[in-house]
Amino acid sequence: MDVRQFIEEHAAEFFGSLGDWLAIPSISADPARHADVGRSADWLRAYLTATGFPAVEVWPTGEADSPGMPAVFAEWPSGDPAAPVVLVYGHHDVQPVEPLEEWDSPPFEAVQRDGMLFGRGASDDKGQVLFHALGLRASLARSGETAPPVTIKLLIEGEEESGSPHFADLLRAKRDRLACDVVVVSDTTMWAADVPSMCVGMRGVVDAEISLRGPERDLHSGSFGGAVPNALQAMAVLLAGLHDADGRVTVPGFYDAVLPLSDAERELIGRLPFDEKAWLAEAGNSRAAAGEAGYGTLERVWARPTAEINGMWGGHTGAGGKTIVPARAHAKLSFRLVANQEPADVIAGLRRYVAENTPPGIEASVTASGGGVRPSFAPLDSPAVSAGVRAMQRAFGTEILFTREGGSGPEADLADILAAPLVFIAVGLNADRIHAPNERVDMALLLKGAEAAAYLWDELAAAGGELTAAR
Amino acid sequence: MDVRQFIEEHAAEFFGSLGDWLAIPSISADPARHADVGRSADWLRAYLTATGFPAVEVWPTGEADSPGMPAVFAEWPSGDPAAPVVLVYGHHDVQPVEPLEEWDSPPFEAVQRDGMLFGRGASDDKGQVLFHALGLRASLARSGETAPPVTIKLLIEGEEESGSPHFADLLRAKRDRLACDVVVVSDTTMWAADVPSMCVGMRGVVDAEISLRGPERDLHSGSFGGAVPNALQAMAVLLAGLHDADGRVTVPGFYDAVLPLSDAERELIGRLPFDEKAWLAEAGNSRAAAGEAGYGTLERVWARPTAEINGMWGGHTGAGGKTIVPARAHAKLSFRLVANQEPADVIAGLRRYVAENTPPGIEASVTASGGGVRPSFAPLDSPAVSAGVRAMQRAFGTEILFTREGGSGPEADLADILAAPLVFIAVGLNADRIHAPNERVDMALLLKGAEAAAYLWDELAAAGGELTAAR
Repeated sequence: MDVRQFIEEHAAEFFGSLGDWLAIPSISADPARHADVGRSADWLRAYLTATGFPAVEVWPTGEADSPGMPAVFAEWPSGDPAAPVVLVYGHHDVQPVEPLEEWDSPPFEAVQRDGMLFGRGASDDKGQVLFHALGLRASLARSGETAPPVTIKLLIEGEEESGSPHFADLLRAKRDRLACDVVVVSDTTMWAADVPSMCVGMRGVVDAEISLRGPERDLHSGSFGGAVPNALQAMAVLLAGLHDADGRVTVPGFYDAVLPLSDAERELIGRLPFDEKAWLAEAGNSRAAAGEAGYGTLERVWARPTAEINGMWGGHTGAGGKTIVPARAHAKLSFRLVANQEPADVIAGLRRYVAENTPPGIEASVTASGGGVRPSFAPLDSPAVSAGVRAMQRAFGTEILFTREGGSGPEADLADILAAPLVFIAVGLNADRIHAPNERVDMALLLKGAEAAAYLWDELAAAGGELTAAR
Repeated sequence: MDVRQFIEEHAAEFFGSLGDWLAIPSISADPARHADVGRSADWLRAYLTATGFPAVEVWPTGEADSPGMPAVFAEWPSGDPAAPVVLVYGHHDVQPVEPLEEWDSPPFEAVQRDGMLFGRGASDDKGQVLFHALGLRASLARSGETAPPVTIKLLIEGEEESGSPHFADLLRAKRDRLACDVVVVSDTTMWAADVPSMCVGMRGVVDAEISLRGPERDLHSGSFGGAVPNALQAMAVLLAGLHDADGRVTVPGFYDAVLPLSDAERELIGRLPFDEKAWLAEAGNSRAAAGEAGYGTLERVWARPTAEINGMWGGHTGAGGKTIVPARAHAKLSFRLVANQEPADVIAGLRRYVAENTPPGIEASVTASGGGVRPSFAPLDSPAVSAGVRAMQRAFGTEILFTREGGSGPEADLADILAAPLVFIAVGLNADRIHAPNERVDMALLLKGAEAAAYLWDELAAAGGELTAAR
């Protein structure tokens, strides 16, 4: 049977099941909902078992004394032991739903309206997890086989909306079970319903705090102003100097490891129908674009690293004036990173920058909180991305463009710990209102996702040796 | 009778009276002590009447519905109607006394020990007001006259330690009664007990707040970072640019009206036995001097204008990281001003600077709180200063050097509203611990102050025509 036909015939049943799953309020950030996250994992285990996966397990995370939320693991081996092993990543936890009064229908009651399915998790990420089950069934219905052409593993975590605190540990602990040749991530968006596209990278991030210390206490500016260093002025100079006149970050070595944006990707990004005015409106009605010279807005947020001042304080910040020379100044910074920058290298560069640019009489300290998140990138011409693009093209019947995302998830951990290339297969939209009231998913697109997933196994099987060469 | 002899013979009586006055806790900043400020004014009225002043009045300040603290006015006309009219300024209110436990003796109980008189107000400013009464009696005892050689007016306010909120209004309302040819200010310090000196200027001050506004709300730095303006970064650039590499303030026109430090004054400042290491220790253990190139530390705090960042805040200032592009940034600034800068001109320059240096996409506003305090300056070669120096030299028997003060009082209002030159006659010391526990005054120096005051009337009378020429 034809893949598309199978999917159409089973669409109503599929959306019914998705609705059942969406009814479970699996909010990982809300301790009162942790039991529901467990119920959500159990629901998925039962569903994948019914789908035909020979092995389905619920994996606890965390420690006995500080447990995390469970992940679901499923595996369906290929009949061909030499075939590539593919790991699909997604998550079954969802964002909180406040403010409740802004929802047009209850967040945990799936409602279909105008071709959309409304409900928390419809797009992020339950809908995009579940299309894989439908796609796999369609693939098997078409081939008439009892096993997929590649070995398929699913790892659906329960803490993504809480920052995946136990995910890297889980990957390391279960490295053997999770061993794979490709990681398929289904938790991103396309450019638009009529501009299907594939994400090929996500920026990483690392945070730091700079503290400056001048005299032991704030000083009277009448007695001392103009003759001792001012910690806030020193901070202003440090922060202003973080960018040069071209908007480039001046931290030593900052760009050394940066993978340049290829001409091919720039050309493809340039073909996206980008409306900068609409984007600025979305950016809190920003009145102007800004950033690194020589790059467009999409290139800046997707493919270029940044230094951002997130917060800054010191001296008198209350009402009225206070004529002091402030003794202390503080700033919180974050750096968005792109392949192949290492968070630790950036922090080392920042320490050097601060040491070299702190004036006499001021003591500086730089503290970094945690190890940061490494950037992820899937080269456009890699075998995994090529296979994914072919699958998407067959489903959508049109050219697939490329995007990236400016923010970060656990994708870099997947690629690094499992030592496998990434490919992003997803059909979410920016219009889906993920993390906001009235989250929804375009039902026709979700079925296209299932169709692309069905073709993906064939395409990855066809890429075979290219994918398994690294074993 | 010789002035010095008269003063020595009446010293015990003088310190007894001063002790009575110090016992009145005239803390203008403490509403619970406002009745005591009234008692202090009444005490002074009685004392000046007993001294022989023909006219002594207590002047209320403020409005009926928001009264201020009373000032004391006294007048003793010269026998010569053509003689200069001299107004002496001081104040009878005192600073709060907390922390009480750090006082070695009760703050409102005058205690004599090792040549020092301890008590709140001993130096700032009751002791320095009262030496004028003793000096005038000594002057009359020496001359044998019943009237002083110049017309003497005293204006002793009751709100100086609270920022003199009603003083300018009082000066304007009583301009005719206060009309004078010279204003003698007795509320400053000398360099040291063995380095008698005269203050010749005080810096003014004006405050402003800069607010920057980017997008309507903080933005997610993953989605938008690097492609829209960051309000904190814009603020850092604005504030860093306020000074050039030589530490000069870049506000347009900032130095246009600045009276250059004369070679003569620089030479005299250079002769003061200044210990920069000790000064830095006093400056909260500052580790280095800093400031405008080409000037020494004393020149910087006394005779050069400054721009100080007093406070700065924006974005996320709480615990942990928050990866935002902040929408708002704020900074509080103050400028120390020297003759002949006008606070309003400096604020106008700041507005221009901010307008010219705010990047596209950021909206800036500058708010100035109040009209600021104008700087005051008494040229070293002016007739009033020359007369004052001669009087001090006669009292101390040694050369008189010159200082200035970095901070501000109502002196500029006195000079401006009464259109009279200033001369500072005072014998306080930095070691007097004014505003701190265990305030004290050097009793021998206070008697030297009385002696200088006694000679001052002769010296000002001798300067006669030079002082009254401007009438």
